Amino acid sequence: MRILSSLAFAAALAATSPAFAQDLSAGAAAVRDKALTDPLAWDIAESLTSEVGARMVGSPAMERARDWSVAKFKELGFENIKVETFTTPAWSRGAESAEVVGPWPHKLAILGLGNSASTPAGGITAPIVVFKSYQAMLDQPPGALTGKIAVVTQAMARTQDGSSYGAVGVQRRAGAAEAAKRGAVGYLIRSISTDDTRLPHTGGGAEGGIPAAALSPPDAELLERLAARGKPVMVKLDMTSASNPASPAWNISGEIRGKEKPDEVIVVGGHLDSWDPGTGAIDDAAGIAITTAAAKLAAAPGKPRRTIRVVMWGSEEQGGSSGAYAAAHKDEVAKMIVAGESDGGAGRIWSISLPKTATEHPAMTAFKSALPKLKVAVNRAAPNEGGADISGLMALGVPFVDFNQDMNRYFDLHHAADDTLDKIDPAELSQNVAVWAAFLYTVANSDIDFRVKPATEAK
Amino acid sequence: MRILSSLAFAAALAATSPAFAQDLSAGAAAVRDKALTDPLAWDIAESLTSEVGARMVGSPAMERARDWSVAKFKELGFENIKVETFTTPAWSRGAESAEVVGPWPHKLAILGLGNSASTPAGGITAPIVVFKSYQAMLDQPPGALTGKIAVVTQAMARTQDGSSYGAVGVQRRAGAAEAAKRGAVGYLIRSISTDDTRLPHTGGGAEGGIPAAALSPPDAELLERLAARGKPVMVKLDMTSASNPASPAWNISGEIRGKEKPDEVIVVGGHLDSWDPGTGAIDDAAGIAITTAAAKLAAAPGKPRRTIRVVMWGSEEQGGSSGAYAAAHKDEVAKMIVAGESDGGAGRIWSISLPKTATEHPAMTAFKSALPKLKVAVNRAAPNEGGADISGLMALGVPFVDFNQDMNRYFDLHHAADDTLDKIDPAELSQNVAVWAAFLYTVANSDIDFRVKPATEAK
Repeated sequence: MRILSSLAFAAALAATSPAFAQDLSAGAAAVRDKALTDPLAWDIAESLTSEVGARMVGSPAMERARDWSVAKFKELGFENIKVETFTTPAWSRGAESAEVVGPWPHKLAILGLGNSASTPAGGITAPIVVFKSYQAMLDQPPGALTGKIAVVTQAMARTQDGSSYGAVGVQRRAGAAEAAKRGAVGYLIRSISTDDTRLPHTGGGAEGGIPAAALSPPDAELLERLAARGKPVMVKLDMTSASNPASPAWNISGEIRGKEKPDEVIVVGGHLDSWDPGTGAIDDAAGIAITTAAAKLAAAPGKPRRTIRVVMWGSEEQGGSSGAYAAAHKDEVAKMIVAGESDGGAGRIWSISLPKTATEHPAMTAFKSALPKLKVAVNRAAPNEGGADISGLMALGVPFVDFNQDMNRYFDLHHAADDTLDKIDPAELSQNVAVWAAFLYTVANSDIDFRVKPATEAK
Repeated sequence: MRILSSLAFAAALAATSPAFAQDLSAGAAAVRDKALTDPLAWDIAESLTSEVGARMVGSPAMERARDWSVAKFKELGFENIKVETFTTPAWSRGAESAEVVGPWPHKLAILGLGNSASTPAGGITAPIVVFKSYQAMLDQPPGALTGKIAVVTQAMARTQDGSSYGAVGVQRRAGAAEAAKRGAVGYLIRSISTDDTRLPHTGGGAEGGIPAAALSPPDAELLERLAARGKPVMVKLDMTSASNPASPAWNISGEIRGKEKPDEVIVVGGHLDSWDPGTGAIDDAAGIAITTAAAKLAAAPGKPRRTIRVVMWGSEEQGGSSGAYAAAHKDEVAKMIVAGESDGGAGRIWSISLPKTATEHPAMTAFKSALPKLKVAVNRAAPNEGGADISGLMALGVPFVDFNQDMNRYFDLHHAADDTLDKIDPAELSQNVAVWAAFLYTVANSDIDFRVKPATEAK
């Protein structure tokens, strides 16, 4: 009896046969188990955060990150490495300070928000008006904040699915413009975060034409207490920044080429850029590390039938990489089997959502058989997030998946100086790699088409 | 039957009678229970941290703290309020920055250590040598660190009794001088802390004549990783500071005068000064708040027989208040019944040590009867800590107590920007007040003498 390799055997079988499914399941389990003890993802995250660190679009560090990506793909044996240049607006931070000048002087811990205006030279000094909810500020009529610094101190709840970010994050994403409409000369928010350190959390959205910054949570609470004393509280804000309307940026990709259908491509990745205060560990060296390691592990048993492409998107935080990637690859989208992005930190995957068209396909049956050991729930809802960097592909009809990471701790660290390597739990990182590797293995070694009903359901 | 007030009744009885002890026990229990729901300590801590905030000796904030103390004592009805001026050396921080300039550029989160030298204008740039233990640096011969920046990255263990501070803290207290002896041009340590934030922890002891600073724990780990890559890692350090050899400082006290023996004084307190990065909440607004509130609560049932004096010592962090206080009160020490300091944060008291001479005195029996509800263990060992600000009195023979606070979380916050009001748990703060109030009540309303064997033991 001729002995076939596991992969050759799988490839030789019809994709819906029980034997094929059984073999894919065994392969997925093996890939998963190897991932759980493999150090590659950790090594990648360690390398990027140590050798590059913070990497904002438009900064010299981003050029080093680009070179790091190419070198890393080469070192790991990826093929068809591409650096796709695009341009995008880039904001950069200058000197920043804030203080209560009276009646009770305090230095305040702030971080300017992306696209914040600078103050005039020498700063501005103005009385604050504290709103304990964002809605309370929105309820103010035009002119009500004239000459004031508006301060919104609404806090964010800790949630496993990160849903509080959407709800409370609006005070960062839209508040500066709303405050400016009402006459405010400055805008401060309690950081969009769940921690209680003196480290503020930055992020984009301060397009109001006025200086806007995030306070650390203790500083926001201090301003609430001072305002409650009933005397005018004067704050001095001194912020500088610069903007480049067309900074170069890069989407960088490497492939494990499929041996049978190389033009059928699975697109996964994370984003290479980060905000500046931390070293971009959980956001998003982790996503880069997870997907790159998963691709390598998925191909470890042998070359897959289809191509696995890992993309390190180049401007997620300030925007631009998703649209640039979709535009550059629009002629290829029909051949993109599925897309996925890891950009929820390094916490374990607790639930996944798969395109409903294909949940009963033998490839997905095989994938799902790998999940109980990883304590992952398969959510019955269809994917609805995807990821910021694949949203352009999603808009062009590319199927996508949601692998939901536990975000209970994510917003303690997100966009803050505390986003450093030590916050990544190696075991949780490996669990992520195991899920992605099993998924990539089953999709790349089958003929699953997430765009059509599978044959088993059509019966 | 003539009805005596509780206190008059107690005072009228011999101090060793069973009825007296029973009455003291009931009083201590009542004082304890009131303390557990009384908001005064929280209000004092809130007031000091909000209205003054960071308060380093020699700073304008310290003058505001002095005025706050006097006003707070007055507001609370304390008598015989005294501001005792002394002079002490005071160091102050200027601009500080550090960065890895190559081969992998990173900004580093540092805080200069007290008495650190400034760098020359423009800073210094030198290769680092990383030691993972303090001993490994001490093992270097003279000259071994010439031209280098020595980096000690030994980490501190989390302990309930804070004993790791003594062990690992030596790398802060003595390391700069040791590094300088070996030729180093700069000295960096992993913060003496148990947290993992990007906030470094300052503290005194950098009298080596070279610039010396604490790294945040993640930055210390980053330098370890960079050094492990085997190429020379260059760090630029730019630090300025100033020193005043004779800054004014103030020990401030207020009394609840005893109605029978006002010259017999119980001395308790905390320290008013703080390091500069936080608002001095757990170190030591908490101690000020606990002892001030405890004194008020101990006297709430009626004027005590003896005087309770609360002292807000004025220069614990940089030294000087203890010696100044002992010198100013040396003629009074024979009449000081006992001294105690609260300077271990705001965590609950988990064990106490009492002078062994008096543990069976009815006053201490009454005090100890209040403790089970507070989950406090009475340690069989004699007190051995006391506190930095009462060490001068201790040296003159004043008996003292140790009320040991749970320090598991203390070194997450100590001397860092994170030392803010929100880190104080109101329930734990109240438990402290309850212990101190019960103690003050029983001592101030008895004739216990901690210097001699009690009569009950002499039988």
